[in-house]
Amino acid sequence: MTGGAPELGLLLSAKVDDAHGARLDDLAAAAGLRLRRHPVDGAEPARIDVAFFSRDLYEGSSLRKPGPLSDAFFRVANAAPALKWLHVCSSGLDLPQYAAALARGVPITASTGVTAAPIAQTAVAAILAQSRGFDRWLAAQARGEWAPLTGDARPPDLENLHVLVLGAGAIGQEIGRLCRALSLRTTAVRRDAQPLPAFDAVIGFDQLDEALPRCDWLVLALPLTPATRGLIDARRLARLPRHARLANVARGELVDEAALAQALTAGRLAGAYLDTFIDEPLPAASPLWTLPSVWISPHNSAASLGHEARVVDCFADHFHRWLMRTAQTPR
Amino acid sequence: MTGGAPELGLLLSAKVDDAHGARLDDLAAAAGLRLRRHPVDGAEPARIDVAFFSRDLYEGSSLRKPGPLSDAFFRVANAAPALKWLHVCSSGLDLPQYAAALARGVPITASTGVTAAPIAQTAVAAILAQSRGFDRWLAAQARGEWAPLTGDARPPDLENLHVLVLGAGAIGQEIGRLCRALSLRTTAVRRDAQPLPAFDAVIGFDQLDEALPRCDWLVLALPLTPATRGLIDARRLARLPRHARLANVARGELVDEAALAQALTAGRLAGAYLDTFIDEPLPAASPLWTLPSVWISPHNSAASLGHEARVVDCFADHFHRWLMRTAQTPR
Repeated sequence: MTGGAPELGLLLSAKVDDAHGARLDDLAAAAGLRLRRHPVDGAEPARIDVAFFSRDLYEGSSLRKPGPLSDAFFRVANAAPALKWLHVCSSGLDLPQYAAALARGVPITASTGVTAAPIAQTAVAAILAQSRGFDRWLAAQARGEWAPLTGDARPPDLENLHVLVLGAGAIGQEIGRLCRALSLRTTAVRRDAQPLPAFDAVIGFDQLDEALPRCDWLVLALPLTPATRGLIDARRLARLPRHARLANVARGELVDEAALAQALTAGRLAGAYLDTFIDEPLPAASPLWTLPSVWISPHNSAASLGHEARVVDCFADHFHRWLMRTAQTPR
Repeated sequence: MTGGAPELGLLLSAKVDDAHGARLDDLAAAAGLRLRRHPVDGAEPARIDVAFFSRDLYEGSSLRKPGPLSDAFFRVANAAPALKWLHVCSSGLDLPQYAAALARGVPITASTGVTAAPIAQTAVAAILAQSRGFDRWLAAQARGEWAPLTGDARPPDLENLHVLVLGAGAIGQEIGRLCRALSLRTTAVRRDAQPLPAFDAVIGFDQLDEALPRCDWLVLALPLTPATRGLIDARRLARLPRHARLANVARGELVDEAALAQALTAGRLAGAYLDTFIDEPLPAASPLWTLPSVWISPHNSAASLGHEARVVDCFADHFHRWLMRTAQTPR
């Protein structure tokens, strides 16, 4: 111990330790604590008070299966008897590596909103590109065909397209904001039908069924819960107009995937952009891989070089507030 | 003649005559004139004072070769001895069907700006989609591969991307405005380096060479003139960073197309979106068809169902002002 200041043991990645250690030390010092930083390799579980599952430790993981860096981190974190708080890099807490900590009642905070901007940008990229005709232009290019869209095959003007966004959290609101900036009409569907600046209109879930026939894009940006699982079933897909398209940057289980593939195959929907699927990686046998006007990204819509840094900023922000609360609590 | 009002003969398409005739009559009546509308079929050249080459008459034409509807219209217009004014649906006046009218000194007005919004939306769709990774995701999808972009292969955050827009007319300014709304950094290159609200910076063409190494997207939105032909030559392409991409929604002749294909093939450029080419349709032998991360649209970036209506609005606006000037001029 140095100068008698109480100590705090932080489990973190070697990368974050190297790049951001001094900044985290300063935050602890401002709260009258001396930070002991424990990079994963060789960290003793007994000395860990706080654990930060940063984005670099997620590399090599998939949504269903933790990778080796994740395994090494949680071997320590899950064995730490005095773990008071775990901060994780994901927006959701539904990853299998968090189950043990959740089960033993460790408080967990997520990096909510950290991926909202890139995920929304990706969704809007697909919405805008397919709305302008790139699905058909790129398909023609793949066939070596010069095939301008003419007459009724031309895309509608953006200001005549209506985007229905399910879920108005950080991602949904950013999708709405960007779509409005591109002059699309936007409606959010959420539990609380209060107005939001990113949307021309906000309606409740009880109005979803009547809104479906009037939308050009149905965008899924809501969390998977028992209430939302299978929300977009065959019946609701059938209520969409034939020229409508679906964008899913949330979770595959929100949609009846077989019914979606059938609707697209039968031409009862015009196209889709899908980042998430019921089984990931999407099985080779899925018809979605090769359907015309279906664009697939491999659960990767959040990909961006700035991700690690934004997660660290989010943790540092939470860490500061946690330290202030801790400093005010008699120990 | 009715009521002795002076008459004015307008050559127009049967479609525009049907849908907008009454509105054009009213404009003429407000200027004290009686409008004689002459749909193309059966129109007598001697009775034509004004001619409106509307968008529906362009269908079936390519940039180089007028189609049958265009031919029929210009057979009358070019034979009209008293033609005082020709309004055309395109933004540029470089189409072959206008050559005869230009040669005999008929005043021609273009539908400037009518295609600016859809063309800019298309350019920004490609910029945004490739910037987020859709060029690589869709290529992986075509191979049936689930291949998330990870580590250094992830795309940079949009706010770190710098878009250099050459030309700041209606199209270039709209591209800048939309890119800014998507949080990209924007610089315009134009003759007059005065600030513009759509751009973070505006520079002159004398600063182009020094700006090239610092851009992530080079966007061509300037007219083809003797000064701009071949502007983006092998030397300037070589000044772009390897991760840079080119978007061309202007004219193919602005670029040394062979040098561009070589740079893309050699990996000295990361990608491109091309709507225009030196030869159109793009010859089957062009390597551009199959280069990875090259997206092609067939001189079709302006495609939108609202196009005809916007051209008619533009003509009606010009017609009103032309009538007001004509009414004030002693005949």
